[in-house]
Amino acid sequence: MIAYFNGSFLRKEEISISPDDRGFLFSDGVYEVVRAYGGKPFKMAEHMDRLARSLRETRIDFPGVVDLAVAGAKLIAMNGLEQADSLIYFQVTRGVAPRKHTFPVPPVSATTMVLVSPAPSSAEMREKGVGAILVPEFRWSRCDIKAIGLLGSVLAVQQAKEKGAEEAIFVRDGIVTEGTHTNVLAVFNGHILTHPLGHFVLSGITRGVVLELCRQTGIASKEQTFRAEELNRASEIIITGTNKEITPIIRLDGRPVGTGAPGPVTRCLQAAYASLVRGEPVS
Amino acid sequence: MIAYFNGSFLRKEEISISPDDRGFLFSDGVYEVVRAYGGKPFKMAEHMDRLARSLRETRIDFPGVVDLAVAGAKLIAMNGLEQADSLIYFQVTRGVAPRKHTFPVPPVSATTMVLVSPAPSSAEMREKGVGAILVPEFRWSRCDIKAIGLLGSVLAVQQAKEKGAEEAIFVRDGIVTEGTHTNVLAVFNGHILTHPLGHFVLSGITRGVVLELCRQTGIASKEQTFRAEELNRASEIIITGTNKEITPIIRLDGRPVGTGAPGPVTRCLQAAYASLVRGEPVS
Repeated sequence: MIAYFNGSFLRKEEISISPDDRGFLFSDGVYEVVRAYGGKPFKMAEHMDRLARSLRETRIDFPGVVDLAVAGAKLIAMNGLEQADSLIYFQVTRGVAPRKHTFPVPPVSATTMVLVSPAPSSAEMREKGVGAILVPEFRWSRCDIKAIGLLGSVLAVQQAKEKGAEEAIFVRDGIVTEGTHTNVLAVFNGHILTHPLGHFVLSGITRGVVLELCRQTGIASKEQTFRAEELNRASEIIITGTNKEITPIIRLDGRPVGTGAPGPVTRCLQAAYASLVRGEPVS
Repeated sequence: MIAYFNGSFLRKEEISISPDDRGFLFSDGVYEVVRAYGGKPFKMAEHMDRLARSLRETRIDFPGVVDLAVAGAKLIAMNGLEQADSLIYFQVTRGVAPRKHTFPVPPVSATTMVLVSPAPSSAEMREKGVGAILVPEFRWSRCDIKAIGLLGSVLAVQQAKEKGAEEAIFVRDGIVTEGTHTNVLAVFNGHILTHPLGHFVLSGITRGVVLELCRQTGIASKEQTFRAEELNRASEIIITGTNKEITPIIRLDGRPVGTGAPGPVTRCLQAAYASLVRGEPVS
């Protein structure tokens, strides 16, 4: 695969990260993942806006977000993925400097990396649904920043996997926030609820698209918190994400959600989303 | 400098971290810093015990902690630091694998790195004292694991620096926990208090040594929480760490602590610590 690293295109195997990179020493960096459908990046501008925001919030000085978007689009062609579904991964760290917690003085250039890969198919998970577990929140309280400090998410989703589930959903002070790499929506009496934006959840691009699709298709939706125990009476639970798209949760902590099968709200949103990403009008 | 990387000694510039290293992509790794005095590592066994614990808690499978300790000691000699004060930095990540949150299947070898560098002198800070600021805790709630996911600490200590202070001290639900890379002790009516061990503070090696020195020198000490507002009536505040050793905080949020100068408890502990690290009997 051809990749992009610090302004140059090169083979991925040629990328050499410095042992003094602050991404490696301090998780001092941010990232984005964009999905391309049939070679076309979906919602690239929204992802780059969020990347720029993550950079501002972490005070990483890198003005070239647009250059990264261009590089990502080029990489699809350079790697022969014009007809395929692929993932574009963007990472920016504060750069390379002798290890010291405070920002480097004098400032150093940010490290930038863009990788592409064929997208793993999530069709079966979307079709059949998956299991999830609830875990107490133990990550930091700036989950709105898409930072590479993901160890908490790694440990939680690994726990899910070992229980036969696909995702771990965090519960902070009794309130359901988000998954390890997805947002969480639940259907109560035909209304979709999801945690409001703020420091405790990522402003998911797919989440935003789904809320817009709700408006277009007449599904009632509200950004409003709900408690973990309320999920017992949710008729449907959905996780959304760039890679997971719109995936139904059919088992929570081993118990069936609703009928134990993907529900009508999920199916309606999936159909609308599928049309949208292929550039078709939403019916 | 000669360094140690994945089992080999090599020049530090030759170290090449993979773009797929989980330390770089997920902050999926742990670390330790050991200080050597006159070429002799101080409390190496305690640091390696803690490293082994961090590995267990993060479920990173690496049984060779003792090999790393040996490599660290060798690096001091290989780099001509036998007479110097130096820092030995150890980092272990879960290894290199295509990006996916869950643990790699099949398992991969951990990435291991040991670096040495001359220790920056902290003598002036210890002598004169430094300022600190209080910041609301926003890191994860497993601060007992010495993980490389340090972005929260980076942002907090940078804020301190920009306010003319040296350290940021976290306050979780009103309770003082620890600094960004130090433990915090406060003296109330001649008694030292520090946050008990648990998930919210690192089990600092220097913290442990200081509590032991308290017992030896007859200073009353207790592992007991105290609230941020109680610091107004602390006669002394101390931060402890491998690099900061025993450093007095003489200004907190811009206001003097006690008399605004390092106090007698601090001085007593500093003297005892200085003897200990040089292998002299504690008087």
